[in-house]
Amino acid sequence: MRCVLLSDTLDLRALFGPALAAVADRVEIVDHPAEHPDDVRLALGWNPPQDAFARYPNLAAICSIGAGADNLLACPGLPESVAVVRVVDPDQARAMSHFVLWHLIGHQRRFSAYAENQRAGRWQRLGQRAAAEVPVGILGYGRIGRQVAADIAALGFPVAAWSRSPGADEPGLARHHGADGLAALLARTEVLVNLLPLTPETTGLLDAARLRRLRPGAFLIHVGRGPQLVEADLLAALDDGTLAGAALDVFAREPLDAGHPFWRHPRIAVTPHEACDASDAAVAAAVAATAEALEAGRPIPHAVDRMRGY
Amino acid sequence: MRCVLLSDTLDLRALFGPALAAVADRVEIVDHPAEHPDDVRLALGWNPPQDAFARYPNLAAICSIGAGADNLLACPGLPESVAVVRVVDPDQARAMSHFVLWHLIGHQRRFSAYAENQRAGRWQRLGQRAAAEVPVGILGYGRIGRQVAADIAALGFPVAAWSRSPGADEPGLARHHGADGLAALLARTEVLVNLLPLTPETTGLLDAARLRRLRPGAFLIHVGRGPQLVEADLLAALDDGTLAGAALDVFAREPLDAGHPFWRHPRIAVTPHEACDASDAAVAAAVAATAEALEAGRPIPHAVDRMRGY
Repeated sequence: MRCVLLSDTLDLRALFGPALAAVADRVEIVDHPAEHPDDVRLALGWNPPQDAFARYPNLAAICSIGAGADNLLACPGLPESVAVVRVVDPDQARAMSHFVLWHLIGHQRRFSAYAENQRAGRWQRLGQRAAAEVPVGILGYGRIGRQVAADIAALGFPVAAWSRSPGADEPGLARHHGADGLAALLARTEVLVNLLPLTPETTGLLDAARLRRLRPGAFLIHVGRGPQLVEADLLAALDDGTLAGAALDVFAREPLDAGHPFWRHPRIAVTPHEACDASDAAVAAAVAATAEALEAGRPIPHAVDRMRGY
Repeated sequence: MRCVLLSDTLDLRALFGPALAAVADRVEIVDHPAEHPDDVRLALGWNPPQDAFARYPNLAAICSIGAGADNLLACPGLPESVAVVRVVDPDQARAMSHFVLWHLIGHQRRFSAYAENQRAGRWQRLGQRAAAEVPVGILGYGRIGRQVAADIAALGFPVAAWSRSPGADEPGLARHHGADGLAALLARTEVLVNLLPLTPETTGLLDAARLRRLRPGAFLIHVGRGPQLVEADLLAALDDGTLAGAALDVFAREPLDAGHPFWRHPRIAVTPHEACDASDAAVAAAVAATAEALEAGRPIPHAVDRMRGY
């Protein structure tokens, strides 16, 4: 099956060409604009060109290059008939878990205070809190959220999770849902991990009022999507002491603007939307699995629920 | 039972008085020099005064304030008849595991490179390696080593451990021992975690020749005892590229001298011997358990093997 590469911002052939070569028996990669556009049923995309969907009237599915598909769902020209496919990669969930753990332990054990003491040449013991004293709240309890929650709980941290749908408590994990559930989760949380997908409901979710519900001296690990956080409210919460610090991997505009106050804030850690990448191999496997499902007329694995938005 | 506090460098009453109050039904705390010295059979110590042991002829046991007892064993006046007791605290093993994980993930995921990019206002994706690509070697496989190894392995890192006595491989963990075993462990290791107790055999163990056996771009997490590391060899190994970096929590002289080159080295993280503290409650519990064993004439829990030195 032919698969067209659709991106205005990334060189998808350079990024994924070698990995896609491994599935060349099932997928032929072509560049946009492709010849014989009527024959194109499959695409791999990230920020697709505006005209792309009009050119391929028989497009049946478009694969994202990661766990989030909001970038594709937001395309104004995306027909309802096109399935949007996200990449599900166990290694990616693990990479997210490592990212979250690093920031969580860094907050718990005050590693930035040690670094400051080192710069000052100061030998000063700071004391330490056990993991049991640092409750963690996770927003989003899908495949990645479950891995993160399990890894954090295994290290001794009390964990609660909030998700769209209700779910039963699990050993070592309290589940919350709905508006009341969110308030309850925030009130018990010192380290908040945002893993939610971007939908109209999650846009602007992390605002001043919600940040104020967290325990005193809270820490935010923001690895969902940029528009979920009201950036001015975050800065105010850091300034007034509501938050002790924040690790931000996603932003309202990416790349983060030069001169944005986040870059220079002493209690914000900025990373360039790289908390966890899907591996090239996982992206190629998703493309191949989508092609096989289309050929066979079977349901497409990991297709996004267009109504839910993830 | 009366327990005398013996330290030239720490105010043990200030540090542990509140926790020891909880075991006051079994242990009466007295300061040095104690009245009626013949009645003193138990001590809690850290850098004891030179004359302390001569004053208490009936001293039967001295408790350390942490997992290591080398500080007490090194006292020239310590009689052979005095049992030396170390603190065994599951929370302390966990705290060590968090400390090691933070530095391990920091190396794997290049968080200092991200911090440097942030200081420069530079949005630059660095790529990422899966845990499976970063083999970890642990020197010392006692109670703390086992916790650290289990936690690291559970997060997907390949782990090997080296110990004095041979032991069978375990699922996800290769065991090594002896001189040949050390060479084999070093050759497969990218991140080396030193958890060994201080003995004549481990003094100076981490020297230029052994550091050179590690994989290229290795990282050292040094949380055993200062004299195990040849400090000049570490600096040379960082300078010539043998090591990518090091996290040092213990030093030949503590506190680390002002002006020591470690303070200012861009690829060394210094912490003030605080990778894991035993909790006050665990120290008090060890003192009480020792008192009970002495009263009952039972073997003392967690007494050090004076021949082995730990």
